[in-house]
Amino acid sequence: MVGADYLADERERAEFDVEEMKIVWAGSQHDLEMSGRIARLVDNDPVFRKDNRCTLDRKELYTNTLRKAAHAWKLITELRLSEEEAFKLRFYIDQPSFMDLHWHMFIPTIAGQGTEEQKRKWLPLAYKMKIIGTYAQTELGHGSDIQGIETTATFDSKTDEFIMHSPTLSSSKWWPGGLGKTSTHAVVFARLVIGGQDHGVNGFIVQLRSMDDHSPLPGITVGDVGMKFGNGAYNSMDNGFMRFDDVRIPRDQMLMRIMEVTRDGKCVKSGVPSRLVYSTMLSTRQKVMSEASLGLSRAVCIAVRYSAVRRQFGSTNGGLENQVIDYKTQQNRLFPLLASAYAFRFVGEWLKWLYTDVSKRFHANDFSTLSEVHACTAGLKSLTTFSTADGIEECRKLCGGQGYLCSSGLPELLAVHLPACTYEGDNIVLLLQVARFLMKTVSQLGSGVALVGTTAYMQRAEHLMQCCCDVQTAEDWLRPGVIIELFEARAIRMSIACSESLSQFVNFEQGFFELSADMVEAAIAHCQLIVVCKFQEKSKQDIPGNGVKTQLETLCSIYGLHLIRKHIGDFLSTGCITPSQGELAGQMLRSLYGRIRPNAVALVDVFNYTDHFLGSVLGRYDGNVYQKLFENALTDPFNDSDVHQDGYSEYIQPMMKRRLRSSAL
Amino acid sequence: MVGADYLADERERAEFDVEEMKIVWAGSQHDLEMSGRIARLVDNDPVFRKDNRCTLDRKELYTNTLRKAAHAWKLITELRLSEEEAFKLRFYIDQPSFMDLHWHMFIPTIAGQGTEEQKRKWLPLAYKMKIIGTYAQTELGHGSDIQGIETTATFDSKTDEFIMHSPTLSSSKWWPGGLGKTSTHAVVFARLVIGGQDHGVNGFIVQLRSMDDHSPLPGITVGDVGMKFGNGAYNSMDNGFMRFDDVRIPRDQMLMRIMEVTRDGKCVKSGVPSRLVYSTMLSTRQKVMSEASLGLSRAVCIAVRYSAVRRQFGSTNGGLENQVIDYKTQQNRLFPLLASAYAFRFVGEWLKWLYTDVSKRFHANDFSTLSEVHACTAGLKSLTTFSTADGIEECRKLCGGQGYLCSSGLPELLAVHLPACTYEGDNIVLLLQVARFLMKTVSQLGSGVALVGTTAYMQRAEHLMQCCCDVQTAEDWLRPGVIIELFEARAIRMSIACSESLSQFVNFEQGFFELSADMVEAAIAHCQLIVVCKFQEKSKQDIPGNGVKTQLETLCSIYGLHLIRKHIGDFLSTGCITPSQGELAGQMLRSLYGRIRPNAVALVDVFNYTDHFLGSVLGRYDGNVYQKLFENALTDPFNDSDVHQDGYSEYIQPMMKRRLRSSAL
Repeated sequence: MVGADYLADERERAEFDVEEMKIVWAGSQHDLEMSGRIARLVDNDPVFRKDNRCTLDRKELYTNTLRKAAHAWKLITELRLSEEEAFKLRFYIDQPSFMDLHWHMFIPTIAGQGTEEQKRKWLPLAYKMKIIGTYAQTELGHGSDIQGIETTATFDSKTDEFIMHSPTLSSSKWWPGGLGKTSTHAVVFARLVIGGQDHGVNGFIVQLRSMDDHSPLPGITVGDVGMKFGNGAYNSMDNGFMRFDDVRIPRDQMLMRIMEVTRDGKCVKSGVPSRLVYSTMLSTRQKVMSEASLGLSRAVCIAVRYSAVRRQFGSTNGGLENQVIDYKTQQNRLFPLLASAYAFRFVGEWLKWLYTDVSKRFHANDFSTLSEVHACTAGLKSLTTFSTADGIEECRKLCGGQGYLCSSGLPELLAVHLPACTYEGDNIVLLLQVARFLMKTVSQLGSGVALVGTTAYMQRAEHLMQCCCDVQTAEDWLRPGVIIELFEARAIRMSIACSESLSQFVNFEQGFFELSADMVEAAIAHCQLIVVCKFQEKSKQDIPGNGVKTQLETLCSIYGLHLIRKHIGDFLSTGCITPSQGELAGQMLRSLYGRIRPNAVALVDVFNYTDHFLGSVLGRYDGNVYQKLFENALTDPFNDSDVHQDGYSEYIQPMMKRRLRSSAL
Repeated sequence: MVGADYLADERERAEFDVEEMKIVWAGSQHDLEMSGRIARLVDNDPVFRKDNRCTLDRKELYTNTLRKAAHAWKLITELRLSEEEAFKLRFYIDQPSFMDLHWHMFIPTIAGQGTEEQKRKWLPLAYKMKIIGTYAQTELGHGSDIQGIETTATFDSKTDEFIMHSPTLSSSKWWPGGLGKTSTHAVVFARLVIGGQDHGVNGFIVQLRSMDDHSPLPGITVGDVGMKFGNGAYNSMDNGFMRFDDVRIPRDQMLMRIMEVTRDGKCVKSGVPSRLVYSTMLSTRQKVMSEASLGLSRAVCIAVRYSAVRRQFGSTNGGLENQVIDYKTQQNRLFPLLASAYAFRFVGEWLKWLYTDVSKRFHANDFSTLSEVHACTAGLKSLTTFSTADGIEECRKLCGGQGYLCSSGLPELLAVHLPACTYEGDNIVLLLQVARFLMKTVSQLGSGVALVGTTAYMQRAEHLMQCCCDVQTAEDWLRPGVIIELFEARAIRMSIACSESLSQFVNFEQGFFELSADMVEAAIAHCQLIVVCKFQEKSKQDIPGNGVKTQLETLCSIYGLHLIRKHIGDFLSTGCITPSQGELAGQMLRSLYGRIRPNAVALVDVFNYTDHFLGSVLGRYDGNVYQKLFENALTDPFNDSDVHQDGYSEYIQPMMKRRLRSSAL
């Protein structure tokens, strides 16, 4: 049945205007159109084929990455794609590569931390890809603690150079993407040493490879860190290691926007606030968060469609079996993830806006919102990357055995999104930073300091500490403001409880260390409140399209209520709700699952993912899953021949015939 | 520093007799000795090398599996290993293969469901590996619901044969291990059809491949289902698909212990109870559970050792940084997993005993404990495989970035253990079976039916429904019986609440369907009670060795208390504890983490895993992690040359020099 749509019935049941919702998801009509156009550009180009990615060996996979990157670069220049379009192109190519580091780390770091002169020299080279750069910070022994970095950059006043050196094994650079085999340059973070004195960690532009033949320059040992988690996935990227043996670079290759080293070896602050370096970090974490939300939406799209196709049990008189998506146990795991995908998408949009806002303030030398924005970004990055990692794996499990096949697309999706829990700040370390911010904010309560933005609710501490949830029926849970106030009450009560426990310690740091597990929980409660708020704000906007608003409201309620059920211990312990109210939340949730059910397939169609991008037999738009699974198996290279001839004659036959020769073993 | 032990300080701090604890873990002195001997046999044999597993392509990996299997078979026969030793040998070889299906599914199925004559014919062939068999049940469209299987075996009375046929695409056999490229025979499950009448699903021994040249027999299409999750892992196994096009087999190849098909096509029950077929299933699930517990212990061993080696933050005056294992957030995630590893090991031992007991009863035609044993096995399989999957991934995250490297061993360990959540019964489906058993048990309360074994606590329903936890200080949580009674109260209250909700539905099935998410939770509560009980029983035994008992008691308390914290919503909602008691449980837990901390490394040494078996640079016994990580990277085939010559000249250089030729793209 070529062209049949096995999910047509599902699509007909939808109770909202899918096309209008697509605009809401994309952000604007322009974004929707542009995304669709670039996605098709990738789809139709055989170079961007990716269904063979799991069967390529490491070297082939790397070559394939280079080929795609080169082809993309050709398209970008030939079609004169805008920066926005080029970004989308790389997104739809959907293969981690050195390009990510070059465009999102190397260039922004020079742009943010370089002087005008440095920018004039290096950025045009980078923009034109005449050099390929990466960002070399993490070392074998030093990840989260940047101040612990051991690589040294020692100033030699005689030659006006810095000498880059790796004094220990643990100081070897380790992990930077694109470092192993591709990059010609890197921003290297190292301790600045002048006259025996340590001036802390700074960034240095270092050339790594010859521009003639790509060989590593003298004194530089560079290579790939080896195979990583999963098939395909980040194995397409050459994450690398690097060691310096007294490598000399000119003085003007230290990034000097904040602090200059003069010809005579003096450190001179430029007057530009050092906090400006946060800007790159905020931008990167915001992007990580945004990618996580899209990763989750892909997994949800696959799991929803397959759950509607897959049938199991319940056939009577030889009729069709039940669709798996109709099982309450399936809905109870799947629909909160669907709601989360929407929630993260909207809070991601908001975070992007927040970043733009704070950037503007930076330019006007206004750093008043920095702490709050930093906490938001760190916290939301943690929350969404943890939830995405868990959520993709849950979607994989929800596809049963088939989710274990690479052709489901889910193993690779998981492998690509797992490391986001660690890179750009380990999630637990980041949540502890959020907790520090919360403890500081709580300590200022009542002091007259105005609380703005995402901490504004804390100004109502007195009310929130003693308010009672007045839900009496399941429907009460949908009354405006009920869920938000509950999340506010829980968040502030947990923060204040932590703060009170903390005050029993003489030493703040000691107390914070001892109570850190509780601190993490308080931080999560605060971040979940932000997500719920931003989702609700979105669904209250004036949104056109038949039924669109209703769907968003339902999803928003599911998101909030499932968190209440999941963290019910928090809500009960802090006295925010009673057990029977918790029970009613569960009832309401079940009822909302019933409302979302007919719209589930349409709600993932909204993401507008092409089959090529989704890369999943289970998530095919047409639902023709079984035939394609079978075809996929038939065309696997392992099935080139019916008999695995070498294996048979060397091992199977001798084993069965008792003629095992030692030589083969 | 060759031979240095970077963890020596940790080992010196241990407060218990590690050698005695090894015996407790292994089960007996004999088991410890035998395991050690076989592990060394594998370690010292270059054929069993596995550090290159992630870089082999699929065909190489399969050949490597055959080579190991053939070599193992040679050792087994030449050294005349016992069945127990052969089992251990396959365990330590640590590579999924067709052997698992042959020995643990094909042979036991014939032994359990074949007639005496059939066993006499087929078992010697299988025992001597003159044939290689697998177990072909699951189909493309049918996994959990065995009764939905579509493959037919139609009796042809003219020729006295069955005609095996795959009538639809979804009836294709899909997943059986060893089916794709290796097995010569299979027990195939198919609908028995006689004279147009369907007699349900039965097992048939079918030859698949020629004994001369291994080619598939006429009418049989067979192959591999394709790449699966992860590097190495189950890709060493040829999980297969198979279709029958009217394949004829003699009548005596239907397994007829329970029901015979006579020459004239009559179905005659043998009088052997059909419930006997449960026996294989119980045995398999018990083995799955036992393997899960060992998988978790491996991950915990790696994460504990690396957390003791890894240092981050907190250096003062250039001194050493803090060991990661000393961070409370790390302990809060890691130590409950350490406790879980012990808990699952002991409950696994008990489940093995239970299986032996029920097998004896079967032989004496006593089926009185069958339902309870079935519920135990199903529930514990679900609980431990879910916890192991989550736990391995948590251990991976606890190793930070390095846990993402294949050389950490954790990605492959995860990939190997994830599918256990699905195979041998989808975990959610199994938990619903447990819930059904609980609902039945609850409905019999007060009817005079004696409740034995793991449901005996339900006889104290009256007390458990109204008892109050009398914990007033953190130390009270360690008083004998407190934790157990709490788990009993929570379990029965959740079961009875489900039962009451259920009674509000006119139709039981409808109610069970609607409430299934709650049913799953009730089942989990019951199963966790079993684990806590069995762990406590173990730690109450008369165990020799200085400090051994104390460690077990501490681990047991950690296991119970962390579950109370994790599921605190359950305990609060059912009124089993108050919020302040929950708070005290958290305090006690933190204090127990302090007690276990000095023993953590010794407690994973207890597992007695060799470096070869563990297969993890991070988990090395000597803790020499960084040097080996670096050496590992250096010897990666991808680093054979400094410049990836093809990639450079084809793509990188043209990209940088703006000379991209279309031909290469």
